[in-house]
Amino acid sequence: MQVSFAPGPSQLYYTVEDHLRHAMRKHIGSISHRSKEFETLFAEATSGLRELLSVPPDFHIFFAGSATEIWERSVQNLVELNSFHFVNGAFSRRYYEIALQLSKRAIKTEVPDGKGFENELPLPSGMEMIAVTHNETSTGVSLPLDFIHSLRGKNKEALIVVDAVSSLPYPRLDYTKIDSVFFSVQKGFGLPAGLGVWIVNDRCIAKADQLLTRGISIGSYHSLPTLLANQKKNQTPETPNVLGIYLLSKVVQDMLRRGIEAIRRETEYKAAILYHALESHPRLAPFVQEKQFQSKTVIVANCKEDVGRITQLLQQNKLFPGDGYGEFRKSQLRFANFPTHSKEQFELLVDILAKTGNQ
Amino acid sequence: MQVSFAPGPSQLYYTVEDHLRHAMRKHIGSISHRSKEFETLFAEATSGLRELLSVPPDFHIFFAGSATEIWERSVQNLVELNSFHFVNGAFSRRYYEIALQLSKRAIKTEVPDGKGFENELPLPSGMEMIAVTHNETSTGVSLPLDFIHSLRGKNKEALIVVDAVSSLPYPRLDYTKIDSVFFSVQKGFGLPAGLGVWIVNDRCIAKADQLLTRGISIGSYHSLPTLLANQKKNQTPETPNVLGIYLLSKVVQDMLRRGIEAIRRETEYKAAILYHALESHPRLAPFVQEKQFQSKTVIVANCKEDVGRITQLLQQNKLFPGDGYGEFRKSQLRFANFPTHSKEQFELLVDILAKTGNQ
Repeated sequence: MQVSFAPGPSQLYYTVEDHLRHAMRKHIGSISHRSKEFETLFAEATSGLRELLSVPPDFHIFFAGSATEIWERSVQNLVELNSFHFVNGAFSRRYYEIALQLSKRAIKTEVPDGKGFENELPLPSGMEMIAVTHNETSTGVSLPLDFIHSLRGKNKEALIVVDAVSSLPYPRLDYTKIDSVFFSVQKGFGLPAGLGVWIVNDRCIAKADQLLTRGISIGSYHSLPTLLANQKKNQTPETPNVLGIYLLSKVVQDMLRRGIEAIRRETEYKAAILYHALESHPRLAPFVQEKQFQSKTVIVANCKEDVGRITQLLQQNKLFPGDGYGEFRKSQLRFANFPTHSKEQFELLVDILAKTGNQ
Repeated sequence: MQVSFAPGPSQLYYTVEDHLRHAMRKHIGSISHRSKEFETLFAEATSGLRELLSVPPDFHIFFAGSATEIWERSVQNLVELNSFHFVNGAFSRRYYEIALQLSKRAIKTEVPDGKGFENELPLPSGMEMIAVTHNETSTGVSLPLDFIHSLRGKNKEALIVVDAVSSLPYPRLDYTKIDSVFFSVQKGFGLPAGLGVWIVNDRCIAKADQLLTRGISIGSYHSLPTLLANQKKNQTPETPNVLGIYLLSKVVQDMLRRGIEAIRRETEYKAAILYHALESHPRLAPFVQEKQFQSKTVIVANCKEDVGRITQLLQQNKLFPGDGYGEFRKSQLRFANFPTHSKEQFELLVDILAKTGNQ
């Protein structure tokens, strides 16, 4: 069996093909999004996610088309004037740029690709939203949760929104320290792309309501009040990706049976052996050098001129690494470490990488 | 085999299950949306649609999450101040309401559910967009193409946008008389929901560019200029519903092999026998009484107190009608007449309905 280590779309969760077969047998592709059957499916997906990710009762779970859409919707619903963005790679930069495209006064603090942020940064006052990317998929930088959780202390008024696109379900978020978190399903959840999950608390709903009351447009069918009104009926405003929501509900059940703690332990084990292999290799190295910023879920390797040779060797063994992002396409490889990737697959990966060091 | 006649999500096109199996074998769920493989798939889907729907070269084909999203994006990208809406049911009304939610001065002309529009209506001047719903899925009213094509004559400046959600691929649109048309794949194309298709000409692109130049926000990742820049590379701005685009490309190929003219002839045959059955039934009748407004693709039956009995009898024969919409839930049934519904299925449907007339 071939395995994709691309950071997304990535390898499908190993149960997806079975669930798709069942979906066809149950005619999931034809059910109405206003039927009891859909409402049950919606409730299963959201209550499963709530349990898996320990989402507290004052947070709501909504669906969008993609995490890219949630970048836009979060700015549209939570910001009248000012948003603040931590930028350290292509995806956090795009979130910032989307705020500008929506005519907001977006402010960023930026560090070079591959770096994280220091704790003591004072933020400007008057920020309505602070956007922080937990895991920069482009570079493999993960911001420590302590850093994210510390933002609240000095910024009580701002809504803290966490892009956890390529890290969930791994991180243990403290929901008392954030207001919103989102992800897309084709990364850690191993599902076909075409669905984003947006988790927001009542402060976010109140902010959207307040903008609306003051006559500011917050969009239409995917505004927070509209999403909430439909979610209360276990429905969505539009005809959604029903098959995607079905598959999500099933994969979340599979993950719950396995246990989130087991998934976390395995993620840490697999990350440890891959970083060790990179560090002990004569010619390879982790791109992210500071340990505190090394992502557990997207591991980026500097390979320099070995990129082609290593890719070829891995592919001969049916392991497909992800390309480096943007300017790093020819000098780096990226390895997703998601719940679908088994310890055995990582051990094989590490063995093959080790061999390339002896040649 | 059970057959859904709900007007969407509807019965899957009969080849979808096979295509899904192939998709799994070809690892479509894991391919990168920036890969050559995806670009090929995108090109196949769009060039296939172009051929099937006779889309001229000055029109572009884009993907969104749903037709609901395209309601919003069309207003956002094509209207600074004024839009005009023909409203004759729940869905055309929602398009109008979305324009209001986006702070536009939306104007509507409205007729009761089940009715169409007269030709000679003079529209107010200064309209930037005229929104017209070819097929009201809620009521089974289809506006004659002559009516839609006549709008251009007296409204040269306005962009004419056609919601053809539940009629395509059936209607023969004259693209010289419209500027944009859109649909979602879970209706006539028989695909799982989660994908909208938006077709626009260069006038639409120019209008969006003009708004942008004047500093008006037209959204971000799904603005027309951004969609166009990505489409030129056979890509999408965000990670899209890759599996949905793959399935669409395959079903469009299947439809091309069958031939659009054969599909149209069969659609007309199936519509004719169902309307005949309703008209000759002692207690049933078409909801839409004027022949010129009777939809060929969504046929709505007034059933009064027979709704429950007829539904039950049809379901015993594994035929699942669609519920009436909104206030008509308890007095009407809706029957989709899409390319996946065979002549044999319609003949069986008509036979069963006829029997209920003799009882």
